[in-house]
Amino acid sequence: MSSPSTLNLSFDTASRGLLPRYRAVRAETEARAAPLSPEDQQIQSMPDCSPAKWHRAHTTWFFETFVLGAEPGYQPFDPAFCYLFNSYYEAVGARHPRPARGMLTRPSAETVGRYRAHVDAAMAVLLQRDDLPGALADLVELGLHHEQQHQELLLTDIKHAFSLNPLKPAYRDTPELAAALSGRAAWVELPSGIYEAGATEDGFAFDNERPRHRHYVHSCRIATQPVTCKDYLEFMAADGYRRAEFWLSDGWATVQREGWEAPLYWTRCEDGGDWQVFRLNGEGAVNPADPVQHLSHYEASAYAAWRGRRLPTEFEWEVAAGMLGIDKMGAGSVWEWTSSAYLPYPGFRTAPGAVGEYNGKFMSGQMVLRGGSWATPKGHSRATYRNFFPPAARWQATGLRLAEDM
Amino acid sequence: MSSPSTLNLSFDTASRGLLPRYRAVRAETEARAAPLSPEDQQIQSMPDCSPAKWHRAHTTWFFETFVLGAEPGYQPFDPAFCYLFNSYYEAVGARHPRPARGMLTRPSAETVGRYRAHVDAAMAVLLQRDDLPGALADLVELGLHHEQQHQELLLTDIKHAFSLNPLKPAYRDTPELAAALSGRAAWVELPSGIYEAGATEDGFAFDNERPRHRHYVHSCRIATQPVTCKDYLEFMAADGYRRAEFWLSDGWATVQREGWEAPLYWTRCEDGGDWQVFRLNGEGAVNPADPVQHLSHYEASAYAAWRGRRLPTEFEWEVAAGMLGIDKMGAGSVWEWTSSAYLPYPGFRTAPGAVGEYNGKFMSGQMVLRGGSWATPKGHSRATYRNFFPPAARWQATGLRLAEDM
Amino acid sequence: MSSPSTLNLSFDTASRGLLPRYRAVRAETEARAAPLSPEDQQIQSMPDCSPAKWHRAHTTWFFETFVLGAEPGYQPFDPAFCYLFNSYYEAVGARHPRPARGMLTRPSAETVGRYRAHVDAAMAVLLQRDDLPGALADLVELGLHHEQQHQELLLTDIKHAFSLNPLKPAYRDTPELAAALSGRAAWVELPSGIYEAGATEDGFAFDNERPRHRHYVHSCRIATQPVTCKDYLEFMAADGYRRAEFWLSDGWATVQREGWEAPLYWTRCEDGGDWQVFRLNGEGAVNPADPVQHLSHYEASAYAAWRGRRLPTEFEWEVAAGMLGIDKMGAGSVWEWTSSAYLPYPGFRTAPGAVGEYNGKFMSGQMVLRGGSWATPKGHSRATYRNFFPPAARWQATGLRLAEDM
Amino acid sequence: MSSPSTLNLSFDTASRGLLPRYRAVRAETEARAAPLSPEDQQIQSMPDCSPAKWHRAHTTWFFETFVLGAEPGYQPFDPAFCYLFNSYYEAVGARHPRPARGMLTRPSAETVGRYRAHVDAAMAVLLQRDDLPGALADLVELGLHHEQQHQELLLTDIKHAFSLNPLKPAYRDTPELAAALSGRAAWVELPSGIYEAGATEDGFAFDNERPRHRHYVHSCRIATQPVTCKDYLEFMAADGYRRAEFWLSDGWATVQREGWEAPLYWTRCEDGGDWQVFRLNGEGAVNPADPVQHLSHYEASAYAAWRGRRLPTEFEWEVAAGMLGIDKMGAGSVWEWTSSAYLPYPGFRTAPGAVGEYNGKFMSGQMVLRGGSWATPKGHSRATYRNFFPPAARWQATGLRLAEDM
Repeated sequence: MSSPSTLNLSFDTASRGLLPRYRAVRAETEARAAPLSPEDQQIQSMPDCSPAKWHRAHTTWFFETFVLGAEPGYQPFDPAFCYLFNSYYEAVGARHPRPARGMLTRPSAETVGRYRAHVDAAMAVLLQRDDLPGALADLVELGLHHEQQHQELLLTDIKHAFSLNPLKPAYRDTPELAAALSGRAAWVELPSGIYEAGATEDGFAFDNERPRHRHYVHSCRIATQPVTCKDYLEFMAADGYRRAEFWLSDGWATVQREGWEAPLYWTRCEDGGDWQVFRLNGEGAVNPADPVQHLSHYEASAYAAWRGRRLPTEFEWEVAAGMLGIDKMGAGSVWEWTSSAYLPYPGFRTAPGAVGEYNGKFMSGQMVLRGGSWATPKGHSRATYRNFFPPAARWQATGLRLAEDM
Repeated sequence: MSSPSTLNLSFDTASRGLLPRYRAVRAETEARAAPLSPEDQQIQSMPDCSPAKWHRAHTTWFFETFVLGAEPGYQPFDPAFCYLFNSYYEAVGARHPRPARGMLTRPSAETVGRYRAHVDAAMAVLLQRDDLPGALADLVELGLHHEQQHQELLLTDIKHAFSLNPLKPAYRDTPELAAALSGRAAWVELPSGIYEAGATEDGFAFDNERPRHRHYVHSCRIATQPVTCKDYLEFMAADGYRRAEFWLSDGWATVQREGWEAPLYWTRCEDGGDWQVFRLNGEGAVNPADPVQHLSHYEASAYAAWRGRRLPTEFEWEVAAGMLGIDKMGAGSVWEWTSSAYLPYPGFRTAPGAVGEYNGKFMSGQMVLRGGSWATPKGHSRATYRNFFPPAARWQATGLRLAEDM
Repeated sequence: MSSPSTLNLSFDTASRGLLPRYRAVRAETEARAAPLSPEDQQIQSMPDCSPAKWHRAHTTWFFETFVLGAEPGYQPFDPAFCYLFNSYYEAVGARHPRPARGMLTRPSAETVGRYRAHVDAAMAVLLQRDDLPGALADLVELGLHHEQQHQELLLTDIKHAFSLNPLKPAYRDTPELAAALSGRAAWVELPSGIYEAGATEDGFAFDNERPRHRHYVHSCRIATQPVTCKDYLEFMAADGYRRAEFWLSDGWATVQREGWEAPLYWTRCEDGGDWQVFRLNGEGAVNPADPVQHLSHYEASAYAAWRGRRLPTEFEWEVAAGMLGIDKMGAGSVWEWTSSAYLPYPGFRTAPGAVGEYNGKFMSGQMVLRGGSWATPKGHSRATYRNFFPPAARWQATGLRLAEDM
Repeated sequence: MSSPSTLNLSFDTASRGLLPRYRAVRAETEARAAPLSPEDQQIQSMPDCSPAKWHRAHTTWFFETFVLGAEPGYQPFDPAFCYLFNSYYEAVGARHPRPARGMLTRPSAETVGRYRAHVDAAMAVLLQRDDLPGALADLVELGLHHEQQHQELLLTDIKHAFSLNPLKPAYRDTPELAAALSGRAAWVELPSGIYEAGATEDGFAFDNERPRHRHYVHSCRIATQPVTCKDYLEFMAADGYRRAEFWLSDGWATVQREGWEAPLYWTRCEDGGDWQVFRLNGEGAVNPADPVQHLSHYEASAYAAWRGRRLPTEFEWEVAAGMLGIDKMGAGSVWEWTSSAYLPYPGFRTAPGAVGEYNGKFMSGQMVLRGGSWATPKGHSRATYRNFFPPAARWQATGLRLAEDM
């Protein structure tokens, strides 16, 4: 198990007010699951997704295993859950195979609710202790941010599951992108030079955001807002999906193999007319002013190449956010693919023990996304936040922003 | 739609007493689903299986489509269900892809219950008509036998689903094979000659059981009861799974590829000791006196070859059943693989229209099973009944009986 | 190793004249390989095919292993060849994996030629012995028929390999079907009754053709010649490949998955005009009078269903051939799919030892073909001959003949 | 087609002495193919490999298409070759599918030899022109470096092909790693600061090496020679292949799926004793002093993690090479995996036209390797050279060098 210093969580634990935050985060998970029936919570619509019930249980398992597990006198809710709800921690032991998460009809959604209550009760006792060790408080902190990540996945996974149902059920009444982008993107200029990137030692950050380090950035400019559906429809109208010259080789092979001709969840009306899009409130017309989302990295790159531009690096993105502030970046509606591979920062070391598996072992074959999305819980993301997915992934709320050399 | 004569259902419709039988069959389906939670009813544990909820809905769809569909004034419960719950009838139109049946979280199990009630109400009105046309009564008859087939699948499918859960949940309190076989098998001798096989024109039979026709049978003898677990454990102890000489070539390749070393649902204790078996009442020790089940045709053939015997043909089986009676055959506890490929009888013709797809188009790549199993609804099977599955299938209640030439 | 009686080769070995026949058969193999370059002989164009070089070596291996292997003083050409050129005899030991046959660039085609000469020399000595044991003579006989089977495969395999080359190389100057069918098919009537089927104990026959046995045939009629390309083009013009109602379920799934819309080797001209076909003499127009070939069992069945007819059983075929003579059946240009699954005859038993693997273990998942084709060596086939392939196979010279009930 | 400036080949074409260099490079290809039979040159042992014959033809196609194609009066050797021997240039048109390269038995190896002579003759005329345009000379230069890349692949591909043959044929008499490493690695220290990386505008370099640009390097040290077999055997002895904590997640999944327990081409003696390795001169004992090779990026990373070290970035590698000189780096025996993903340098732009597909479109999903190997033609590599392969690739001559933070 990691110590506070390896997790770089050096702030004072006493003043954190962890219990109210714990309760708020846990309640948000349940609020997101509330519109879902037991059947909805059961299914895993593809191996990358997980059932909503599993998200609810796994986030609970995290607290039980890493926080309560070492507490004397704690009675696990069910010893089998250690196996059932471990996600990928090799150090914790064997676990249920990921692609078979949707096969677990027992425990039921209702039992998972009782599991959550059991752990919440034990956590409430723990979090009211005056002498809560800093290391434990750090793990609670990590567990809350971890649960917020699963809150995002719970929404994107259920969107995927619902999209497979010909009835096109609505998860809620309102679309996910309530506020559309206004006007055209402008450009922010970044002068060349050495910049610092990554999270400082103050406050919470994931280990992959650290250490803060120097990076040389070449002069360039970066758009003030993400690409819209209107922009992207121009790419589609220009035969973008059928012109190999804009595509990375792997991307072109994927387009051919999968038959992609639009973002995920877009379907053409049967009369060959306008594009429809499946949203959390059901199917409807594409809104041109929305930021385009559910793009793979391949599509984002091809779009940028067609415009004669490119994706920003994650460092350029972070510098621009530092100059403008995330809000003025128009960020937060969709995650933005960068041109940076997901790799360790100079000086990065994984923490010893199971928590060290949190991020480092995934630093291969994935690309960094920056910003945040409609699915991201409020307050979860930040300017140094590094999200990451394989380049072909499309079921997250993923769009892009343009950059160009000067 | 087929006419009575093509379905060969020529008996008098007035005397059938269809309504009580309809109610009894429909109730049996609900009784089999009753121990299942909404989550249990949701999942499809492999492409060959279907969710319990789907079985409940599809059997209802059959009555709605083929019986009520032509009735003036009938209001479908939900027009989308025609697409969702069609199994394989090309003539009825497009349908939800089979491997994605487990992705339909909506309609819920509860809604499917209301769908069943809606159709049952309309059927009750129909079945009380004095002037019920014979053709329609024939289709009701077919629908009831169809629903009984799905009752069997509902049990074998949920057994498979539960077997994947590390918690090994029990569907019920009692094992599926309550009465074990007594004593060793004896032999019945069949003299060579011409025999008649297949169903006569009286009473209900599926089209694949007809026409009744002549068949030359060579003298042989056939065991009076199926092979037991004790027998099969001897084959395993004799390295049966590691000796190619007993296996069909496709079977040997399957054994190697799948790593089979015992029937499906058998697992060895972690200390390398005795074999455990998963049953509807959970996991427990193998009962040597039980007929062995969950064998593929390949395993059944290899076992017989190792004994220096063979599987009976479906005709030999039927002749022996005619001589002894099914009960004295020890039949009915497990389906018995025969050495006969599932092919049309001489003179067989598929009915025109959608109902013609019921059996004929599956006469390729499958082997015939005879008898019946613990999962078969009472009164459903008969001596001429032809069950059929691909030779590698193991999730049905499938065993074998030996035969030999004289 | 099998004894003569189990192989049922009871005729007098002294009078067989084996040496000239041995030389003629061996020479035919080399004649078929002669137009092929070392590169041509190297490749395996799909797992079902084998390189021409491999056919030349494996047939030699058969004599070396089963005939010369037991001879005192015989020196194997290269001990490694026992592993390299075993096809599927588990009892002989481990062997090179079938799909990797095309990876063996060494030994070269030239070395395989020397291997053949080495074995031929030893065989010549053996076959001039006065005291050649009958059992050994039987195995030589079997080896010659075995080599003839590979002669056929050598041609069909190289046709497949050449078809993949955009240069469409010609193997020879003349097409494989030199003499087209004349006129329309007539019908032969078979009265119902008990017939004998299978090979008698006189003369050579494969074990799968025995024992001769009684079979009840129902009255039917059978066409006097195979279906022509002209006939089949009518099926295609009638949208036969797009109408599910004519297809077996497995066949329809294959058509969808593979995108079949014509027999193998047929391609449409780029201007969407007439169909071209690839033959051993290169690409050219379809000849309507040719028997249609390179059909799967699924296509043959669908064609017959569309005509309102069916395929004959293998017994019907054999009875008709007995009545008319094979020549008057118009047989011999293409193999003809029957509706019979490839299963053991009543009383069939595999021979003990490796030779017992010759046929019996393949009696699963395959359909019987009768007749013979342009690729079959002269004198190899006979009225009782049972060829067999999986129902989806198309690279053999496979067509069909119609039958119908009376 | 690209102009000289976009290819950044700005040096004076007149003084290049292209013809002798052209002849030398072309002769080297033929020398490498000389030990191979027509059969050896035919096969493609996995989709990533190409037949030797194809390498010989494709490198010739490059000159024919990009250099001679625009020359008035040039007669192509065979117009079909444009389709057959295009590798991946979408802009040049359709092409033979990569995984089917081994299916082309025609043209023969001998015909490919005549193709090479035909193009060489036309090239000799061209390269003796006084007025050879600089753009054309640039393309010849590119073609020569391109051919050298295929010379390396020709050797690694044939090594793979031969390794699949149970006869373990030798390509040549001597092993590929003639000179083993002496002594243990020392460390070179790199002070932090801004460094320039990438090729200058002088002399030939691939487009992916440019533009030269500033990069901030953090203080670290880097080993003076690659890891040896002796080193790597210690990792294996320490159960390195069975301890998840050292592996990237994708790497661990690959190890499990593929059953890796040693570098590619290593096999354990049947008596469970020492490791054998397959080399160009056949199979023999592992030489502990050799640099370890045929590792995936995953294995290289796991080894470094087990040592408590890491792989160098490509920039660190380049800076160290600049400080020490490549020779003093012990480089050149095996390619060395870096921790850098293969991505464009700041300011990189692909050239317009087909040549622009040379490198840029592959900048996804691959890792950079630096140095060079025994298979690399003399003079081909340089300190700025960026080789790249997917992280699971093992059939190249790939090893590693350690680095660590200071």
